[in-house]
Amino acid sequence: MPTVMGTTVQDEMAQDDLISDLPLGPLSEYRNKASFNWKEMAIFLDDEDLVLFRKKIFSTLEKDPLFHRHPGQDLSMEKYRELTFLRCKRIFEYDFLPLQELFEKPQKMLTLITCLGMYDWSLGAKYFLNSQVFSGAVGNAGSEKHNHFLKQVQNMEIFGCFALTELSHGSNTKAIRTTAIFDTSTKEFIINSPDFEAAKFWVGNMGKTATHAVVYAQLYTSDGQCHGLHSFVVQIRDLNTLLPMPGVMVGDIGKKLGQNGLDNGFAMFHNVRIPQENLLNRTGDITSSGAYTSAYKDPKQRLGASLGTLSSGRVSIMSMAVVNLKLAISIAIRFSATRRQFGPNEREEIPVLEYQLQQWRLLPYLAAVYALDHFSKSFFMNFIEFQIGILMKDKSQRQGELGKEIHALSCAGKPLASWTAQQGAQECREACGGHGYLAMNRLGDIRSDNDPNCTYEGDNNVLLQQTSNYLLSLVHSIHEDKVHIESPLGTVNFLNDFKAILGHKFTARSVEDCLDSRVSLESYKWLVCYLLRESYVKLQHEKQSQNNDFYARNNSQVYYCRSLAMAFIELSVLERYHDYTHDINTPHSLQPVLKNLCALYGLWSLSKHLAVLYQGGFCSGEQPGRIVQEAILELCAKLKDDAIALVDAIAPPDFILNSPIGKADGELYKNLWSAVLQGEKVLERPAWWAEFCSNKPIIGHLKSQL
Amino acid sequence: MPTVMGTTVQDEMAQDDLISDLPLGPLSEYRNKASFNWKEMAIFLDDEDLVLFRKKIFSTLEKDPLFHRHPGQDLSMEKYRELTFLRCKRIFEYDFLPLQELFEKPQKMLTLITCLGMYDWSLGAKYFLNSQVFSGAVGNAGSEKHNHFLKQVQNMEIFGCFALTELSHGSNTKAIRTTAIFDTSTKEFIINSPDFEAAKFWVGNMGKTATHAVVYAQLYTSDGQCHGLHSFVVQIRDLNTLLPMPGVMVGDIGKKLGQNGLDNGFAMFHNVRIPQENLLNRTGDITSSGAYTSAYKDPKQRLGASLGTLSSGRVSIMSMAVVNLKLAISIAIRFSATRRQFGPNEREEIPVLEYQLQQWRLLPYLAAVYALDHFSKSFFMNFIEFQIGILMKDKSQRQGELGKEIHALSCAGKPLASWTAQQGAQECREACGGHGYLAMNRLGDIRSDNDPNCTYEGDNNVLLQQTSNYLLSLVHSIHEDKVHIESPLGTVNFLNDFKAILGHKFTARSVEDCLDSRVSLESYKWLVCYLLRESYVKLQHEKQSQNNDFYARNNSQVYYCRSLAMAFIELSVLERYHDYTHDINTPHSLQPVLKNLCALYGLWSLSKHLAVLYQGGFCSGEQPGRIVQEAILELCAKLKDDAIALVDAIAPPDFILNSPIGKADGELYKNLWSAVLQGEKVLERPAWWAEFCSNKPIIGHLKSQL
Repeated sequence: MPTVMGTTVQDEMAQDDLISDLPLGPLSEYRNKASFNWKEMAIFLDDEDLVLFRKKIFSTLEKDPLFHRHPGQDLSMEKYRELTFLRCKRIFEYDFLPLQELFEKPQKMLTLITCLGMYDWSLGAKYFLNSQVFSGAVGNAGSEKHNHFLKQVQNMEIFGCFALTELSHGSNTKAIRTTAIFDTSTKEFIINSPDFEAAKFWVGNMGKTATHAVVYAQLYTSDGQCHGLHSFVVQIRDLNTLLPMPGVMVGDIGKKLGQNGLDNGFAMFHNVRIPQENLLNRTGDITSSGAYTSAYKDPKQRLGASLGTLSSGRVSIMSMAVVNLKLAISIAIRFSATRRQFGPNEREEIPVLEYQLQQWRLLPYLAAVYALDHFSKSFFMNFIEFQIGILMKDKSQRQGELGKEIHALSCAGKPLASWTAQQGAQECREACGGHGYLAMNRLGDIRSDNDPNCTYEGDNNVLLQQTSNYLLSLVHSIHEDKVHIESPLGTVNFLNDFKAILGHKFTARSVEDCLDSRVSLESYKWLVCYLLRESYVKLQHEKQSQNNDFYARNNSQVYYCRSLAMAFIELSVLERYHDYTHDINTPHSLQPVLKNLCALYGLWSLSKHLAVLYQGGFCSGEQPGRIVQEAILELCAKLKDDAIALVDAIAPPDFILNSPIGKADGELYKNLWSAVLQGEKVLERPAWWAEFCSNKPIIGHLKSQL
Repeated sequence: MPTVMGTTVQDEMAQDDLISDLPLGPLSEYRNKASFNWKEMAIFLDDEDLVLFRKKIFSTLEKDPLFHRHPGQDLSMEKYRELTFLRCKRIFEYDFLPLQELFEKPQKMLTLITCLGMYDWSLGAKYFLNSQVFSGAVGNAGSEKHNHFLKQVQNMEIFGCFALTELSHGSNTKAIRTTAIFDTSTKEFIINSPDFEAAKFWVGNMGKTATHAVVYAQLYTSDGQCHGLHSFVVQIRDLNTLLPMPGVMVGDIGKKLGQNGLDNGFAMFHNVRIPQENLLNRTGDITSSGAYTSAYKDPKQRLGASLGTLSSGRVSIMSMAVVNLKLAISIAIRFSATRRQFGPNEREEIPVLEYQLQQWRLLPYLAAVYALDHFSKSFFMNFIEFQIGILMKDKSQRQGELGKEIHALSCAGKPLASWTAQQGAQECREACGGHGYLAMNRLGDIRSDNDPNCTYEGDNNVLLQQTSNYLLSLVHSIHEDKVHIESPLGTVNFLNDFKAILGHKFTARSVEDCLDSRVSLESYKWLVCYLLRESYVKLQHEKQSQNNDFYARNNSQVYYCRSLAMAFIELSVLERYHDYTHDINTPHSLQPVLKNLCALYGLWSLSKHLAVLYQGGFCSGEQPGRIVQEAILELCAKLKDDAIALVDAIAPPDFILNSPIGKADGELYKNLWSAVLQGEKVLERPAWWAEFCSNKPIIGHLKSQL
């Protein structure tokens, strides 16, 4: 429980029970300089219950030899996939999160997934795709008669995957070409892939493991009429042999940039028959006479409802990306606090974290972790509220509006989080120099495992259009002064002051002024209003000159709608974090550092839009840019001594972090050296030594073949 | 030979002999729309001789089964390193570039390295580190008595590596701690690593292969006096057994993010004795009586000369990075021209290259490839001129100035090229969506293989300080009006107009105006002058308030010196490319497209500095930003139909490019599908199937252990 008045002795004792001390060592100096108690922070960030839950998961994995890893191990893809399956199975045996507990505290699902992901995203994704994505698709799009699939998944009788994307179609889901034709005589659907371009492709778990797939296909009634995209449960492998079912050609798409413990696969269907009841029938169904019925009259709305599951994916992906950034920044900051290079004189070298440049490269990402972590967690709870509304069949206007707002936020939140993590991981890798390039230090895996977050469940750039469309749809209300804009989560309420805000100017006059996040918050509001107006005008202009909505929209993305969506989500994240850090319930002992983080995140994000602020006349003259920049550096300097404690509060235990240069004891070189020496055949002569020593090349003797 | 008046029938026949036609297919539509002849472009970019040389290398590799690759192959690190060694050996047997040919045309070395790199950077790096970096270090720092090492390298009697970096020191070379103590009695040096933190680390080829290392160590005479860092040839492995030499502990540092065919290693020395003559004695030597002598009186100058070899590395790395961007952009643009998604109506989908957003994401990188390729090649020739000066013992002032200018350019050119390639490869990966995440399409390897270019031969951020220092050193001359600034390559000559330039304003008034690169060129000159003034003032201010040069310099990097260095190198690249594309000797038939590329590169690079242009008062009002942005999009639209031909002119043959989605025939899905089906055990049931089918988990049975 957060306390208002700071920690008491009792609190500290409770904290110590929950969270172990970190070892003394080279990092102690920074730890001693911290302005706050990192354990208090850790408990404030989650709550005792979640901290305990996470601790349980982490220590369980650490105690189980199946989860042990060998430094510098060079696992084959096949072996890695096997190991990931076995680990996934073991997770079922631990049953960390029984249904009852999940219902009591839905956040625990996110905690479980992200804990597994912190350990290894191949495992996290494998578990998530089966237990959440497959089950979610069945649960959300199906009805009671499909509950047996959910039970079977829980018992690992079956293993699921989610098959939407095809070889030639991803973003354009309407163009999916797999067909499901209803055979009235046998009451079956016949699933077909018209050709290999329509093969299901990229499906996680499909490569080697899954026995069942939720397959998206165009539903045809026997009269030959197409009723659009629907989802079906298709058994793809035999439960007793794991061999493909008749008519199914299923395989592994091969090595990826990352997450190679997860088997992504493809499938082609040739007259595969499935029972009628395998149609997930929430949005549309077939009557006993073979006629099509649907509660949705508009096929577009039906498609939207049918793809609703993806929203849940996006909400989770935000948290996954945040986790990746947590891992990367923990490694890079601990490294920077122990790596010494150059110094004010010949005798002493200083930690690279003391360099302003290094602070500027890393600390904004630390601030981003804190801001995005808060957003993704609180947004997850908004999403749960929305889901409950669906389950309760809430048909209120608020529920509808909430759906739209959540859609708009998740379609930009996923891009923001995944890109920030991607860029942050890259910066962390570079900030650790050569040692960041050594695989065992994990920055490469973090980067590569995070990468698909930019692509799946909607390509980032394509998704952003959904967000700008949402904002553009409000322009009409803005123009009609009488219509009051009030969204359930309040993210667009400021648009009521649209005209007034557009008249605002950058008012901060000193670096001091900028040290509070209010400055960037106000600037962002202007920025979003400005970009909204400009995007709207641009779009109208393009529509008139192109006379084609498709091209008009495409030509309004760069510098307009795309920037608008990004600015809006940054504002939303910032605003939520600003309110949170300024809330009276936030412990006084933590407020100063949290406010610094918030101010840094705000200014750093804002500084990428500085040109637009000038262009649109919000800023003018040398001063605004200069004081924003100086304030960023000032905040970095303020946060520098807190950086290690801030990392301690978010980093998983060493066993999970799994990075010699990122260990909590800070014994950079000792850890690195001993890990290197554990490598396979590290000191051994290569098997091919004779190819060098005796079998000498005759220089140029193949030249004649040129 | 470039022609001024466009190609004749004869030219075209000659071109066809040299360069084969590309297959007809889905890309033909774009090829037909191109405004120029891509073969003419290819020959213009290099020249017939180099085109032929490259063709010879590529077709030789393609014909040799040792170089064949299996799609989706999952090579173990050990196997990959073996294969890379065997391929490297085979390169010796082909002897593509005998010394005589190299002397006649030094560019061929760069062509050879980059051709091998296009095939696989592990091979390119392995070959380069031995044949160029080790040999270069011996050649440049040694004297005639060391020539036998060079011969032995050429015959592969020995295999070399370059050992400067230590576990705990990279950028701060002065702090290197390996020692070489002269033993007057035996006329030997005794090499020691004081502890494991001083182990040589990260050394390419040292892991498994190298028999000899150029080792940097602090030279001590027997009187205990230290004479600073010197380089020594140390034999580390036995030539007949490839076992470590006595006292040498040498091993492999393990898996890296990329280039895993290359064996990076470490070494610790325990009283390893080497003969006196193994000191590379150009900068300092030991007399027969054991006394130290040096032509350089100032130890700093000596260190500079001793590290000179790194400059050559940086010059080469620019080209390596450009090659990576060539590969990535070729794959992404061919993919974008064949991947169709959405369209103006339900019936037709359009290539994603038709989307303005996709053009904006990719085409600036295509422009960057062209501009940076020209810069890196012409700069290489500047470097050769400088090297010849050294060999000729040119002591002129011009030679000295040339050295400084080349140092300044290479210290920023490497960061610019490597970062552009890094960001470009990432954008290309994302622009290809999921298929970009499939390992066989190579974008991951390109990104990972390029990554170390940001780090080695000087960390990018650290290097940039060298460039800003060079520029800051000119401020004195600027203030003294009478001193005329004239650098050998002319990159800083515009600073003579420093004051006048600072008075300039952005004058373009329309999008039309901005379509010529002159606009960005003029803007860049202002930008560099502005940042130079601001950096100088900032530095003076910090020096006064800090009273410590070290901290003053550190606190002047972000937003000042670092930005200055980047702006300066972008200007240098742009200016060279502007002059080149506007040269009357550049064929008329190619000029329009080349000018578009130049203008796009200029504006796109400039647009990242837009905030500073406003902040400093060069721009004001909405218009400048707007017309720059519109011009960028306009240039993208202009270049869109030329994009495939531009890629054809720089892409290697399919066998070398090795990416199903990037093949020249444009049969995206056919190539991808057939490559996937070639994967190992792609359709096979996993070995561990029984672990799913019979050995079922008992859900929660390990829960008691929690």
